[in-house]
Amino acid sequence: MSDWPLEDRGVAYGDGLFETVLVRDGTPLLWEQHLARLARGCRVLGMPLPAREHLEAPLVEAGAGLSVLKLILTRGSGGRGYALPETLEPRLRWRLDPFAPSAQRWRHGVRVRHCRLRLGIQPLLAGLKHLNRLENVLARAEWTNADTAEGLLCDAEGRLVEATCMNLFWQRDGVLETPRLDRCGVAGTLRVTLLERAPIREVDAAPETLERVEALWLGNSLQGLWPVARLDDAEGNPLRHWRVGPSHRPLQALAHEALGYPAITP
Amino acid sequence: MSDWPLEDRGVAYGDGLFETVLVRDGTPLLWEQHLARLARGCRVLGMPLPAREHLEAPLVEAGAGLSVLKLILTRGSGGRGYALPETLEPRLRWRLDPFAPSAQRWRHGVRVRHCRLRLGIQPLLAGLKHLNRLENVLARAEWTNADTAEGLLCDAEGRLVEATCMNLFWQRDGVLETPRLDRCGVAGTLRVTLLERAPIREVDAAPETLERVEALWLGNSLQGLWPVARLDDAEGNPLRHWRVGPSHRPLQALAHEALGYPAITP
Repeated sequence: MSDWPLEDRGVAYGDGLFETVLVRDGTPLLWEQHLARLARGCRVLGMPLPAREHLEAPLVEAGAGLSVLKLILTRGSGGRGYALPETLEPRLRWRLDPFAPSAQRWRHGVRVRHCRLRLGIQPLLAGLKHLNRLENVLARAEWTNADTAEGLLCDAEGRLVEATCMNLFWQRDGVLETPRLDRCGVAGTLRVTLLERAPIREVDAAPETLERVEALWLGNSLQGLWPVARLDDAEGNPLRHWRVGPSHRPLQALAHEALGYPAITP
Repeated sequence: MSDWPLEDRGVAYGDGLFETVLVRDGTPLLWEQHLARLARGCRVLGMPLPAREHLEAPLVEAGAGLSVLKLILTRGSGGRGYALPETLEPRLRWRLDPFAPSAQRWRHGVRVRHCRLRLGIQPLLAGLKHLNRLENVLARAEWTNADTAEGLLCDAEGRLVEATCMNLFWQRDGVLETPRLDRCGVAGTLRVTLLERAPIREVDAAPETLERVEALWLGNSLQGLWPVARLDDAEGNPLRHWRVGPSHRPLQALAHEALGYPAITP
């Protein structure tokens, strides 16, 4: 696909939205959930949602096997400064790339750490996959060792929110929980799906909560669900280890069913 | 100048910075202040600052009279997701456009309103002119009547911060004040200049403060300093009127001296 014009509001202001979609043999997974989030983002930003046929057009170019479709929708060009253009002509661009999930992490789990960065609280934009992602970039830059898979983020008031590009789930006293996302964070499509299919409570929780949970997972619609085997503090020192095993598998199996990934046996 | 590649991190994540510079007869105004802010942004984002000669190269194309130079510096392409590329090759783009300030506003002042949107608190990014500007876009979309010139923004905890694209100054009990910008907001180059040249205190203030000030101004390095003649609430109903006159002129004259604009006489 072609480039972005110099004056596009996507680069000038991050004035737009994106979706990253797992595609198997030309079929997009969790597609209704992706479309619903994009539609909600368009309502909040005051942009028209492109016709479904335009959003689905790239799929004809996906070959056999797994690929990842990245859709970026910006408000287009125009407007004086931050003011909206009188006539909105959003700009849709996409790319398709081959994809392979980190399958060994499904079985053995991952090492994660707390990030120092605190997410700003902005309820207007909470849950949306918009193009203002500098916080995620800066949080991801907090570590460079390859054996740390993700970083966990709290909001400015110290509540757990998400990981830099995944949502967070845990089991505490036998109950499945995930952070509420009404102040900041991205409401992942896999999270939406798991909330529909499993009894998961949306809660406010402090980061110390995680040191007392029976099981912890990270997940998104590309990678599926990773059990967490080790949690580090923001300096990389261990806070807690978990034995990855049977207690991690039922929720993982639900997630993987939705994505066409295999269920892992203990 | 050329377009942005599809995968540029500027559009993908707003991963970059910009500057908007007033240029008179080929000479950039407040140029050292613009360079200092850009350098600080590069340090925070972990990007190399382009050589001064590259940043100044566009100026040879500026003709006589006033123009506005917009520089956008992104982190370039590459990296897996939010993770930084191993080799950083920032991308610099610019455009020059003719410019004319809203000179009648210098004399007669403007009508402004409070915005409903609250800025998220993110000290890491506070003061920078980065590319994550969705909050400004949404705030600017709160009004469409042409006779309202600007909207005032508070942070999530209710402190005054700035206007959508200008900084805020007022005189209270004979003392000049401006909001502190250590939690959010953009530290304008005109604001930096005025803080150096006039006794202005940086303060935390509630929005109701403005109803009791003797004079209120908005300013930036393109427009100079606008006296405020009328302040509205977020529905456009008047909260306070000021007679624009002699009390507004000294600070305005200081600002205009820095930008080569005329001093306005009562």
